[in-house]
Amino acid sequence: MKTTTVKGTNDYLPKEAALRDYLQNKILNTYINNGFEHIITPAIEDAENLDKSEGGENLNLIFKILKRGDKLTKAIESGNMDSLSDMGLRYDLTLPLSRYYANNKANLNLPFKAIQIDRVYRAERPQKGRLREFVQCDIDILGSSSSSCEIELIYTTAKALLAIEIEEFRVKVNDRRILNSILKNIGFAQEELESVCIIFDKMDKIGKDGVIEELAKKEYSENVISKFEEFISIPDMSLDRVREFVSEDDRCYVDNVSEIIAKSLKLAAGKYDVVFDISLVRGQGYYTGTIFEVESLKFKGAIAGGGRYDNLIGKFTGESVAAVGFSIGFERIYSILSEQNYVPKDIVKKVVLFYNEDEYTDAVMKADELRKEYAVTMIERPKKLGKYLAKIEAQGYYGFLVYGEADEIKLLGHN
Amino acid sequence: MKTTTVKGTNDYLPKEAALRDYLQNKILNTYINNGFEHIITPAIEDAENLDKSEGGENLNLIFKILKRGDKLTKAIESGNMDSLSDMGLRYDLTLPLSRYYANNKANLNLPFKAIQIDRVYRAERPQKGRLREFVQCDIDILGSSSSSCEIELIYTTAKALLAIEIEEFRVKVNDRRILNSILKNIGFAQEELESVCIIFDKMDKIGKDGVIEELAKKEYSENVISKFEEFISIPDMSLDRVREFVSEDDRCYVDNVSEIIAKSLKLAAGKYDVVFDISLVRGQGYYTGTIFEVESLKFKGAIAGGGRYDNLIGKFTGESVAAVGFSIGFERIYSILSEQNYVPKDIVKKVVLFYNEDEYTDAVMKADELRKEYAVTMIERPKKLGKYLAKIEAQGYYGFLVYGEADEIKLLGHN
Repeated sequence: MKTTTVKGTNDYLPKEAALRDYLQNKILNTYINNGFEHIITPAIEDAENLDKSEGGENLNLIFKILKRGDKLTKAIESGNMDSLSDMGLRYDLTLPLSRYYANNKANLNLPFKAIQIDRVYRAERPQKGRLREFVQCDIDILGSSSSSCEIELIYTTAKALLAIEIEEFRVKVNDRRILNSILKNIGFAQEELESVCIIFDKMDKIGKDGVIEELAKKEYSENVISKFEEFISIPDMSLDRVREFVSEDDRCYVDNVSEIIAKSLKLAAGKYDVVFDISLVRGQGYYTGTIFEVESLKFKGAIAGGGRYDNLIGKFTGESVAAVGFSIGFERIYSILSEQNYVPKDIVKKVVLFYNEDEYTDAVMKADELRKEYAVTMIERPKKLGKYLAKIEAQGYYGFLVYGEADEIKLLGHN
Repeated sequence: MKTTTVKGTNDYLPKEAALRDYLQNKILNTYINNGFEHIITPAIEDAENLDKSEGGENLNLIFKILKRGDKLTKAIESGNMDSLSDMGLRYDLTLPLSRYYANNKANLNLPFKAIQIDRVYRAERPQKGRLREFVQCDIDILGSSSSSCEIELIYTTAKALLAIEIEEFRVKVNDRRILNSILKNIGFAQEELESVCIIFDKMDKIGKDGVIEELAKKEYSENVISKFEEFISIPDMSLDRVREFVSEDDRCYVDNVSEIIAKSLKLAAGKYDVVFDISLVRGQGYYTGTIFEVESLKFKGAIAGGGRYDNLIGKFTGESVAAVGFSIGFERIYSILSEQNYVPKDIVKKVVLFYNEDEYTDAVMKADELRKEYAVTMIERPKKLGKYLAKIEAQGYYGFLVYGEADEIKLLGHN
């Protein structure tokens, strides 16, 4: 039998699981305290729903579940490879949320403020930081197009980050409709916008020259590319400056972003910055309006992202439903904190009570007393106590007690 | 697109998810407080590991994951149906725990006291109370054959049940080795024991006559069957009485059960009963020693079960590792409490703060004040306030406040 986990998935040691639980609970409780409601959906979805969703690249990464019994035999006989499966593992939580809303809307408040913290699956090529099974942490507001939704999502996500002691971050805001308006004014055609955005999104990684080079390869007109280069060369593009490049009809989107930033800054009360960033694009194809991202200043790079996706739910309900969401990059944050050996201040303290077998039930009574304050593990006194103590110390235990020998907990070295 | 969940899986509404979270947290925290350690394993396991495990009937219920790309093409060309998949979804948490132990033992304390609360998958025929995706709640102690493990598992599981206000239950204890000794003395052959046990296990459902009838069908000797009938006709079989039917060499197992029951009763302190039950068999093939079950007196039937399985982990490690576990029937308990409309006393209270859009940021400050005590949802004041209030009342909200109109929370009708 194989003892390792399957490729791209992890076993978590007790210390690691404790940190994951701690982070998930802090985030969940922050969201609940702020009036969002936790929902639970299955990890398995109908294969057609997955295939027809707007998952972009992710659609190539779906784990499909094999049919069984007669159904499988028939599928094989049919010679149609696509018919081998009719279910798959979800690749994100947005598609399940959209289906959930359509399935349960009679029983939900509107606007519906949902929390999802759960596992998703993608057949990524295994590499550092890329898992095939990982946790996503989303909040979404469905059924309202008010800009207070964006403000609330930014405020609540920032609260969750502060609750797990992630500091030194800033929130970047943009709007797909502003980007599109500018690109059209520069001279790109409607059908080119999507792929220009995808290239522009790489600015962080490949720089301005890289972006221009890739655009050139796509054979857009030289004139248009050089106008675009001129535009992205403007340093510190502000909302006021960007207004000039946006069609008059689309300036309301600039006002909208401006309002979101002003109110978010007021609520941030100096704890973090909220800024306009014209180079923020966000990968997903389904975004239709505002987009935002949290950038860690300390660790570089995005630790949360989201935006408005007003058309996705309509695929299930038949009528358009306004929707906007924000997702914390849970695995990124877990791996940052874990590399730092982060130990939360309010994590439960673990103590070992050693006992001899003949005094077991009495020792349990003593353990129960200590359990009012600590998590207490009972262990039959090992022959080599010193060696055992060294081991539990390395695992982050707080202290120990030998039943019958002492009444007070002895702290382990690092405390 | 299909709006329903796939067969045998559930969407959980906010109220339902809140109850599930509450129960899981209470159970998890009880286990942690009692010195067990939470671990996390992937939902996906290697297909061979799953197929070669001792899962009995469950091996026919495994969801397999389809290979992808070239691997899939090759598998189809090979014509070997079994090669279409090399991974599957776990059907329980015991196999993953065994693999986990083998994979991580250098980093674990011995004895290792593990908690697992997680989803498992079985392709059950959908019917009431049978899900294809469901949560299991296990504690296990690995690496010790001391009977204090059984006592600790019984005590800790009972504590978890009491913590979620499940009362009126009793713990039944037996030992596979006692059963086997008796059956051999009655005249069954070694190779018949397993299937006789499986039939005896149905006693609850088909009664004594049903059991005898099924044994007769198997064509065991009439003489042996009639001796067995005589044995199971003895009312209130006590541990003292059972001793007569057990070989001298096996009486140590009777003493062992006797000790477990006596010490467990002392720790129970009158809150629940712990009894010997010769008719307790437990289905799983992998049990090798003591077995136990919690029976709800109020709701009839088992709500937790477990036992010793000393050979399973050896399949991974090559050397035998003592192991014993206890599993709470989470879905059974959830469905009982949910049907009773159980609302935990200490569940977080939800309040709605209504506001007008132009006073949004000020309303947030007010909400944050209230959030010191309540979970507060902010909703733009709806046109039909009364209708909205009726809806949130039905959903279990505690109270509401209209920003700018009142300073105190108004309770909703049922509070």
